[in-house]
Amino acid sequence: MRIIGIDPGLTRCGVGVVDGSVGRPPQLVAVGVVRTAVTLDLAQRLLALEEGLLAWFDDYRPDAVAIERVFSQHNKSSVMDTAQAAGVAALTGARRGLTVTFHTPSEVKAAVTGSGSADKAQVAQMVTRILKLTEAPRPADAADALAVAVCHAWRGGATNRYAAAVAAARGSR
Amino acid sequence: MRIIGIDPGLTRCGVGVVDGSVGRPPQLVAVGVVRTAVTLDLAQRLLALEEGLLAWFDDYRPDAVAIERVFSQHNKSSVMDTAQAAGVAALTGARRGLTVTFHTPSEVKAAVTGSGSADKAQVAQMVTRILKLTEAPRPADAADALAVAVCHAWRGGATNRYAAAVAAARGSR
Repeated sequence: MRIIGIDPGLTRCGVGVVDGSVGRPPQLVAVGVVRTAVTLDLAQRLLALEEGLLAWFDDYRPDAVAIERVFSQHNKSSVMDTAQAAGVAALTGARRGLTVTFHTPSEVKAAVTGSGSADKAQVAQMVTRILKLTEAPRPADAADALAVAVCHAWRGGATNRYAAAVAAARGSR
Repeated sequence: MRIIGIDPGLTRCGVGVVDGSVGRPPQLVAVGVVRTAVTLDLAQRLLALEEGLLAWFDDYRPDAVAIERVFSQHNKSSVMDTAQAAGVAALTGARRGLTVTFHTPSEVKAAVTGSGSADKAQVAQMVTRILKLTEAPRPADAADALAVAVCHAWRGGATNRYAAAVAAARGSR
C-alpha cells in the first residue's frame, strides 16, 4: 500500500510518500514540501497548496492519505493557518476518493520512536533509520510527513476505523 | 456587487448572499446553511461542505466572498473543525477566481450593530432590520453569514486591502 503522509502547513507543508503495510519495513518513495508564498492572501495560498498537493497525488498515486492532526494548544499564532491547510489536504484526498486518516502528534511519535513525547530530532533520526536513508530529510516538515506515513503504515488505519465507529455511534444516537 | 457571506462551520455552515455596495442599503438575495452529516469522517464532511458551497456559488454567482475569521480562543472543542471549514470555504472562492476577504467577529458585529461586542441576538436583530426582513433568519449561523456579507458590503473590502499590503510588506522584507 502506498501512503502519502502530510504534515500540514501553509508556509511549508511536509509531504512524504512510502510503500508499506503492517509488519513490513516501509520503503521511501518520495519526500519534500509544498511551499506557498507569504505575499499571497490566505485564500490564494490555500489554492496554491491544493495545486501543489494535487501534483503529488498525480505523480505518486497514493492508496491512502495520512495527516497529522492539528491541536489548538500548539503554536498559537499560526495554528489557524495550519488547521486550514489540514482541511485543504483532507479535502484534496477525499476528492480523489481516498481514505483520509488523521493521526495525533503523540500517535506519530509513539509509532516511530516508541515514545509519545519524543522531540523533533528523535523523530527525524528514527525516520532516517526506519527508511534506511543516508541522512535526515530536510526541512523538519518533510521528516514529520514521513513519520506520519510510517505511523499509518504500521497502525494500518486503526485510528480511522475507531473514528468511523465513533461517528457511526454518534449518528445512531 | 453581489457578496456571499460565510459563517464557517462543519455541522452548519451559514451562507448569506446580498447585493450591496458602500453607502447603499444592501438587499437580501438568499440565505441558508450547508449541513454535513456527523456520521461522515472529517475529510468526507469537508468534501460535502465543498459540494454544498459550490452549489451556492453556481446558483447565485457572487462577485466576492466574505468569511468570518476563526480564532483559536473561541469554543475550543470544535474550533479546529471550524478552521478547516473556513479553509475549504476560502479555497472554494479562490478556485472560482473570486477575492476572498476575512472579517473578524468584532468587525462584523461593529459593522451591523455599531458595537464590536454585540451578542448574537443583537446581530440577528440588526441584520433583520438592515435587510428589511419580516423575521430573523434561522438558524443563527444563517443570520451571522448575512452579517458578514453586510459587513463586507459596507467596508468595501478595506480589510482585504490592508491584509494585502501587510503581506506585500512581509514579502519585501
